[in-house]
Amino acid sequence: MGGLDIQCSLVEQLLVRFLRSEAGKFGFERALVGLSGGVDSAVSAALCARAFGPRNVLGVRLPYKSSSAASETDALAVVAALGIETRKVDITAMVDGYVQQQDVSDRVRRGNVMARARMVVLYDLSAEWRALVIGTSNKTEILLGYSTQFGDAASALNPLGDLYKQQVFQLARHLGLPASVIEKRPSADLFEGQTDEGELGFTYAEVDALLERMVDQRYGEEELVANGFDPAFVRRIGERVASNQYKRLPPIIAKISERTVNHDFRYLRSWGR
Amino acid sequence: MGGLDIQCSLVEQLLVRFLRSEAGKFGFERALVGLSGGVDSAVSAALCARAFGPRNVLGVRLPYKSSSAASETDALAVVAALGIETRKVDITAMVDGYVQQQDVSDRVRRGNVMARARMVVLYDLSAEWRALVIGTSNKTEILLGYSTQFGDAASALNPLGDLYKQQVFQLARHLGLPASVIEKRPSADLFEGQTDEGELGFTYAEVDALLERMVDQRYGEEELVANGFDPAFVRRIGERVASNQYKRLPPIIAKISERTVNHDFRYLRSWGR
Repeated sequence: MGGLDIQCSLVEQLLVRFLRSEAGKFGFERALVGLSGGVDSAVSAALCARAFGPRNVLGVRLPYKSSSAASETDALAVVAALGIETRKVDITAMVDGYVQQQDVSDRVRRGNVMARARMVVLYDLSAEWRALVIGTSNKTEILLGYSTQFGDAASALNPLGDLYKQQVFQLARHLGLPASVIEKRPSADLFEGQTDEGELGFTYAEVDALLERMVDQRYGEEELVANGFDPAFVRRIGERVASNQYKRLPPIIAKISERTVNHDFRYLRSWGR
Repeated sequence: MGGLDIQCSLVEQLLVRFLRSEAGKFGFERALVGLSGGVDSAVSAALCARAFGPRNVLGVRLPYKSSSAASETDALAVVAALGIETRKVDITAMVDGYVQQQDVSDRVRRGNVMARARMVVLYDLSAEWRALVIGTSNKTEILLGYSTQFGDAASALNPLGDLYKQQVFQLARHLGLPASVIEKRPSADLFEGQTDEGELGFTYAEVDALLERMVDQRYGEEELVANGFDPAFVRRIGERVASNQYKRLPPIIAKISERTVNHDFRYLRSWGR
């Protein structure tokens, strides 16, 4: 696990600076984070509080009628610990306005509707609050595609996208976040009894160790197996990373002209300003 | 306007092939398009009907209570002309489940909520229908940022993203789409009396002529002015293209590790498959 240990103080400093300078380029000094009560959004909010000052951070609680009471308690604990602003918007009417009307019973589809409804609220409040939506997706989730495209995966800036789940936990402890948030089992809380690890079929410890060697250290399949990883697990994760690549990219545009957006018309965000 | 004339048969062929082959890489043979009654979604649906066969294309009508009756009539005319499948999902309950509950009165914010609610429905139906969401944003819109991020701008594949609005009209005529769709003034129909050109403050003809020279032919500001474009208009459009660059990119991830998603971990979608 050596490759997964991070220097928390340094990483904290880097991420706080990243948030401040990138938001500044957009012309923003305020941040908005959807607070689920989980560790990722807690760390993201904590970094925002340090970057922008707690009063310039809005932590939005977005319960659905089936969300667990613990999610709300934990989200409020994060708000209290950080001293940030908060607001609650119940997404039930919005979600049921679709899933009940259209009889959507599949729980994965319902979960995706919820994740996207939360995005709708966050982006709307970002206009009201003149704040940037700050992401909460970690590197493990992004590589595995374990998130909803245009839902929880949507943000303007993402301070966590290069930290594996284990590293988010390290940072959470370093930042002194509430124990209840750090100690509970990660869950998207989209249906009763859901846990990330139960749904994925492996633990974050297992997959982070593999991904770090596969992606960061660029080990090939043979080296990974020589390092003690199960060949079937290696193949399964490799395929999962590849097949979810589309979630990490903007829409694919058919090339017709001399200069096409996202092909050869691709500038830095700060282009010419 | 010479630079804007396209060879419609060739472009049609290219785009049909693009849709078929790119969808195939994703493992899909069906397509789903949100039909607004406007020219962009009509052209996109027509290309899909040619690429996948009309029975493998679902045109989804997504009215809000304030949507104009003409939008519905025109969308149905497109369905009839192409012989594609269709379904209607009223987004009013979903949208009002948020905007009424939270008293959102600003019409731009309300319009963005509607555009994103439509994305929620399209992506959910894409799971039910095992079909890819095909985009309808043209190059003019994309460059100007005249669309809703994670709303109408969201798609898996976009056949229109490299065609200026004038070129979409050329293709629409070539494809024999209903006259009512081609002849009406473009509008997002998000509020009563809205027209694109009224809202933008210039015509598509004007801006397409400028953008084609600025982006495709890479004319500088001086050359553009020498070509008869108003200096203030040139500057205004240049700034608009630059300041909307963020809408064309995935979330910005803070770089911490050796290999970061969207920095140096960036493969083709078809990587390793």
